[in-house]
Amino acid sequence: MEKHFSGSVAAPVSPRVETVLRPLGIHDSTISGGFWGERQTLNANAIIPHCLYWEEKVGWINNFSAQQRGALLTERQGREFSDSDVYKLLEAMAWEIGRTGDGNLQQQLDQLVELIGKSQGPDGYLNTKFDNPGQEPRYSDFEWGHELYNYGHLIQAAVARLRNGLTMDDPLVQIATRAADHVCVVFGPGGKDKVGGHPEIEVALAEFYRVTGEKKYLEQAQLFLDRRGHGTLDDIEFGRGYFQDDQPIRDAEVLRGHAVRALYLSAGAIDAAVERGDDELLTLVENQYLRTLAKRTYITGGMGSHHQDEAFGADYELPPDRAYCETCAGIASVMVAWRLLLARGDVRYADIIERTMYNLVAASPAEDGKAFFYTNTLHQRVNGKPMPTDKASPRATDSGRAAWFNVSCCPTNVARTFAQFSAYVATSNADGVQLLQFVPGTVTASLDDGRRASLEVSTDYPRGGRVKIEVVEAPQGPWTLTVRVPGWAQGARVSIAGVEHDAAAPAFVAEDLQAGDVVEVDLPMAPRWVYADERIDAVRGTVAVERGPLVLCAESVDQVDSADVSRLSVDAAQPLVDHGETVVAQGWIAAHDSDSSPYYSEPGSPKKEKADIAFVPYHSWANRGPSTMRIWVPVAQDV
Amino acid sequence: MEKHFSGSVAAPVSPRVETVLRPLGIHDSTISGGFWGERQTLNANAIIPHCLYWEEKVGWINNFSAQQRGALLTERQGREFSDSDVYKLLEAMAWEIGRTGDGNLQQQLDQLVELIGKSQGPDGYLNTKFDNPGQEPRYSDFEWGHELYNYGHLIQAAVARLRNGLTMDDPLVQIATRAADHVCVVFGPGGKDKVGGHPEIEVALAEFYRVTGEKKYLEQAQLFLDRRGHGTLDDIEFGRGYFQDDQPIRDAEVLRGHAVRALYLSAGAIDAAVERGDDELLTLVENQYLRTLAKRTYITGGMGSHHQDEAFGADYELPPDRAYCETCAGIASVMVAWRLLLARGDVRYADIIERTMYNLVAASPAEDGKAFFYTNTLHQRVNGKPMPTDKASPRATDSGRAAWFNVSCCPTNVARTFAQFSAYVATSNADGVQLLQFVPGTVTASLDDGRRASLEVSTDYPRGGRVKIEVVEAPQGPWTLTVRVPGWAQGARVSIAGVEHDAAAPAFVAEDLQAGDVVEVDLPMAPRWVYADERIDAVRGTVAVERGPLVLCAESVDQVDSADVSRLSVDAAQPLVDHGETVVAQGWIAAHDSDSSPYYSEPGSPKKEKADIAFVPYHSWANRGPSTMRIWVPVAQDV
Repeated sequence: MEKHFSGSVAAPVSPRVETVLRPLGIHDSTISGGFWGERQTLNANAIIPHCLYWEEKVGWINNFSAQQRGALLTERQGREFSDSDVYKLLEAMAWEIGRTGDGNLQQQLDQLVELIGKSQGPDGYLNTKFDNPGQEPRYSDFEWGHELYNYGHLIQAAVARLRNGLTMDDPLVQIATRAADHVCVVFGPGGKDKVGGHPEIEVALAEFYRVTGEKKYLEQAQLFLDRRGHGTLDDIEFGRGYFQDDQPIRDAEVLRGHAVRALYLSAGAIDAAVERGDDELLTLVENQYLRTLAKRTYITGGMGSHHQDEAFGADYELPPDRAYCETCAGIASVMVAWRLLLARGDVRYADIIERTMYNLVAASPAEDGKAFFYTNTLHQRVNGKPMPTDKASPRATDSGRAAWFNVSCCPTNVARTFAQFSAYVATSNADGVQLLQFVPGTVTASLDDGRRASLEVSTDYPRGGRVKIEVVEAPQGPWTLTVRVPGWAQGARVSIAGVEHDAAAPAFVAEDLQAGDVVEVDLPMAPRWVYADERIDAVRGTVAVERGPLVLCAESVDQVDSADVSRLSVDAAQPLVDHGETVVAQGWIAAHDSDSSPYYSEPGSPKKEKADIAFVPYHSWANRGPSTMRIWVPVAQDV
Repeated sequence: MEKHFSGSVAAPVSPRVETVLRPLGIHDSTISGGFWGERQTLNANAIIPHCLYWEEKVGWINNFSAQQRGALLTERQGREFSDSDVYKLLEAMAWEIGRTGDGNLQQQLDQLVELIGKSQGPDGYLNTKFDNPGQEPRYSDFEWGHELYNYGHLIQAAVARLRNGLTMDDPLVQIATRAADHVCVVFGPGGKDKVGGHPEIEVALAEFYRVTGEKKYLEQAQLFLDRRGHGTLDDIEFGRGYFQDDQPIRDAEVLRGHAVRALYLSAGAIDAAVERGDDELLTLVENQYLRTLAKRTYITGGMGSHHQDEAFGADYELPPDRAYCETCAGIASVMVAWRLLLARGDVRYADIIERTMYNLVAASPAEDGKAFFYTNTLHQRVNGKPMPTDKASPRATDSGRAAWFNVSCCPTNVARTFAQFSAYVATSNADGVQLLQFVPGTVTASLDDGRRASLEVSTDYPRGGRVKIEVVEAPQGPWTLTVRVPGWAQGARVSIAGVEHDAAAPAFVAEDLQAGDVVEVDLPMAPRWVYADERIDAVRGTVAVERGPLVLCAESVDQVDSADVSRLSVDAAQPLVDHGETVVAQGWIAAHDSDSSPYYSEPGSPKKEKADIAFVPYHSWANRGPSTMRIWVPVAQDV
C-alpha cells in the first residue's frame, strides 16, 4: 500500500509520497552544542540580525514602502532580485522562530510581512523593480528580471511557515498563495510559454504543493521544467547554457552554466520527479549530479570554476586560485544531495553534505557572524585587504569576508541553512533510524505502526572522532539503527556493549538495540594526505590535508616568519602530526630570488629551508586578518 | 648636440628626439616573403577586405550615415566603441596603402573618410553613440563611454597617413586635427578634470605631437597621464585598477587591471616620457613592464589571466586553460616593447616582440584570414564547435576562431600590425644598423653624416635557423652591424667570410663590414623542452616545447587515434625529434576509466600506453577543425 505524508514535517524537504528515507523535523533532531550548535547560536545572535540590519540599511526593505508611496523611481535601491533577499531573510526567520520560538523575531517577521503584503497587487503580482509607475512592464525581461525567482523565495518562506505550525491563514502564507496562484494563471497551460532566467520557482512550487496539497503547483513546476531547454530565453554572451536553456533537462549529461541556477533547477526537478513518480527524470538528474561531483566539484564540495559567469567549467577545470565556489552554490548542492538521499536512501549523499557544510558553507561567515565570503577560493595569492565593515562590497572575491554585497544572496542563504540544519542530522523509515551527521543532541523518530525510537548523541566531533549514541527509547520488535560511516573514515570501529566491530563506509547497521544500549563509534581522526586525479591540471604535483571531515589549509599567518604560501612545499612521504586544531607537515620554505623570465631551459628549483608547515581548518581561514592561503600545497621536488 | 627628428618616419613609432635606436620606415625595411611576407599578403588579400565587409555588414559604418540622417535612434548598431574599429581599419588601410600604393584601397579609404567627416560637429566632436538627438549627452560616461578612446584611434589613423607621405590638408588628418584640438580645449588645463575609461588618447596625442610638432598635443597627453590614478573614475565592481585609476602611474609597481588598457597607457607614458626627457617616468614604466614580463606573462607572450575583466591576475596566476591573452593585449605589448627598445637600445625587447608576434598575434587569424581568435588560450579542454562564418560571436573564447565579434577590436588591430610589421625588423643609429627580426628582404638605413648602409637578408626562418645577411652598401668609415641573438638561441654561431664566431644573446656585433661581405647566422633550431617557474602553480609538473621562436602545442588531431590532450604525458628526459613542422616526443596516452570522486587517499595513475606525442606550432592550431590542445603537457609520473 502506498503511504502518503502531509508534506508538513518541519524540515526543508518533506515529500508527500513515501521516499526511501523520511525526513525528521527540527524538533525531532535537535542540536545541543558543538560545531553546528555554535553556528546556530551565531545565526540567532548575529547573522540574522546582521541581515536585517543591512537589508534596512541598503534600502531593500524600504523598496516595499517606496512602492506603496509611489516613490520607487527615486528611492528604489538594489538589484532586480533584491526582493528575494528579503524573502530569504523571512525564510531564515521562519525556521529560527520554529526552532526557538523567539518572540522578538516573530514580531520583526510580522512587521516585514505586513509591509510586503501591502505591495502586492490584487492579481497577486508583487515586485518592486517592475511594473510600477515609470518602470519597465512586468514580464518584459525573462533573462534578467528575476520576477519568478523572487516569487520562488517568497513561496519558500511560506513553506517554512507552514512547516513550522502556521496555517493557510497566516499572512505570509496568504501573500505567497496569491503569488503562486498568479504564476499558475499567467504561466499555466495556454499562458505565457516562458521560463525565468534564474530557476527557483520550480523547487518552490513543488514544495508548496507538498505542504498545501494543491496539485496545480506541482503541475506548474513540471511545466516550467519541461519548458526549459528550448531556447525561449535569449542567446546571451555566456550562451543559453548559463540558465540551462541550452538543452532540455532530460537531455543533459552534466550540470553546466551558472552553478546556483543549475543546482536550484536540479532540486526542483528532483522534487517534481519524486512527487510525480517520474523515476526516469530522477535518474537522469541524479546522474547529472553524480557526474558533476566526479568531474566539476572542488575538494571543499564547492562548485563553479568561473568568476565571469559564476559557472561550472569544463570537466576537471578546477583552478584553486580562481575557484568561484559561491556560497549559495554550496548550499544548493546540499539541497540536491539531501533530496537524492531521501529519494534513494543512499547515505553517501550525507558524505557530500558533510563535506560541503563543513568546508564551504561554514567557511562563509566570519567568526563574529558579521561578514561573509560570497566566493570561496581554495588559494589566496595576495594578502587580503581588510574589508570595510560599513560598506557593501561587489563580491569579496579575494580580500577577506565582506559585511554585505551589492548582490547579497549568500548571507541570507547561510542564515536559513543554519537555522534548518538539525533536519539534516538524521532520517527514519519504517524499520529504523539513520544517523547521518555527528552532532550532539537528540533524535526521535516514528517508525511504522506508531513505534518510536529515541537517541541521545554525545560527541565533540569534528574535534574528536568518538560518537556515543545512547538508545533512550527503543521500538518494539525488530528495528535498525544505521550509522553513516564517512568515505574518508577508513578503519572506523563501532563498539556495542563492549563488543567491537569493524565499520566500513557507507554505513554500520545495528539491529534491535534496547533502551539503555550504547553504541560507540570511533572514527579515525588522524590527519591524512589527499591526492587529486591527474586530470585536475591546476593541482598537479600538490597534495591536500584532511582531518576527519575537515579540509585543512596552509595559511601564511601560521607559517615560520609568516611565510607567504607561494614559498611552501611539503614531503608527503612523511606522516602528518596532529596537534588538534593545527596539523603539521614536514616541508620546506623556498627563498625565491629570481625576478627574470619565469620560463627556463632547465628545470630549476630555488633554495629551500626545512620547516614545519602548519595546516588549519579551511573554514576558519581569514579570521585573523590578511593572509595568503592554499589548500593544495606542492610536493617538494629536488630537495 | 641634441638631434631632432621629424617624427615622420613611416613607422608606428617615430620620436622627435634622439632615442638610442632609431626606427626605420616600412620602405627602409622590406619583407620579400616568408612567414611575415605571407601574412602581409594575407592581410592585403583577405584580412583588410574581411574587416571592411564586416564593418559594413554589422552596421558600424552605417552609424555615420545614420548620424547624418538623424536615424541613429533606430539604426545605430554596435557597442559604444564601434566607431574606433572603423578608425582602426582606416589606420590599417593607411599603412597598407603606404606599403603597396594600392589604389583600390585608397578609394575605399577616401569614401570612408568622406562619410566620417560629415558626422563631425563644428567644434570637432565626433561620436555616433553620444550627444546626437535622443542619445545621452557627450562626456556623460567616462567609465564606459569610450569617446576619448575613439578619438585616439582616429588620431592614430591620421598619424599613419602623415607618416606615409600625406600632409596636414589630407581630409582624414583634418578630421583628426579638429578632434585633437577639441580634446585639448575641453580637457586642457582648466577644462574637464577627467580621463577616459580606456586609455588610448594618451599614446595617440603623443604620436600626433611627434608628427605635427604641435606641443599642445604632448602636453595634453601628459595631463591625461598625470590625472589618472586619482580616482576620478567610478569605483566599479572590478575596482578602479581595471582602468588604472587606482594609483598614479608613477606609484605603480606592475601592470594591473584590464590588460589592453594597462598596455596602451604604458605606451602613451613612454612616448610622453621620451619626448619630454622624463627619464624617471620612463624608468618607472619600464620597470612595471619588466615585472609584468617576469610574473604576469604567458610563454606565448600573452597577457591577461582573467576572462571576467580581461585583466592581469596576481603574480604567477597564469592558468593555461583560462588564459585570456587577448590578441589586442599581445599587440599592445609589442607596442610597449618596441618603444622601450628604441628608448633604451636593449635588443632583448625584440625577443619579446618575436615571441609575441609568432605565438600570439600570428595565432589570431585563421589560415584564410577570415576568422580570428579574440582570446588565445593555452589549453583547450573541449573539442571546439565550428564557429558560424556569417554571425558575429561574443568572444570566441573556446571554440575556434570567429568571423567577427560583437566587440571586434582584434581583427583590425591584427590588420594594422601586419601592415606595419616591416618597421619592426631593424633599427639604426649613428654608428650602424641593428637587425632584430629574421625576415627575408632588404634593410636600408641612414647613419650619421649622410652615411648609408644597405643589407639584403635571405632566410626561411623560422623553418630553418640560417640567416644570410649580405652587405649591399657599406657606409664609409667605422660602423657596426648588430644582429640580435635570441635568448633561446644557445650555441648560435655567426660566420663572416668563412670565419666562425660564437654568438651569444642578446646580440652579435660585426664591425666595419664592406659591401659584398656576407654574414651567415646559424641559430640552433633543435626543438627544446621548456620549464616554468615553480610559482606558476597552474603548470606545475608539465613541460612545454619550443622550436626556434615558436611555441609548440599538442593538438588532439595529431595524436595517435586523435587522443584527447587530457590523456597525454611525456618523458622530458628523452630528446625531442624534429620533423620540421612537427616535433615528436616520447610519451604515453592514458586510459582514464574512473568516473568516481577525483580525490584519493593514495596517489594514483591510470593505465598508460607508450606513444609518440606530436607537437605543432601553436600559432597554427585549430586550423583543421575541432580539436583539444595544450601547450604545457604533463611529465609522466610512475611509468
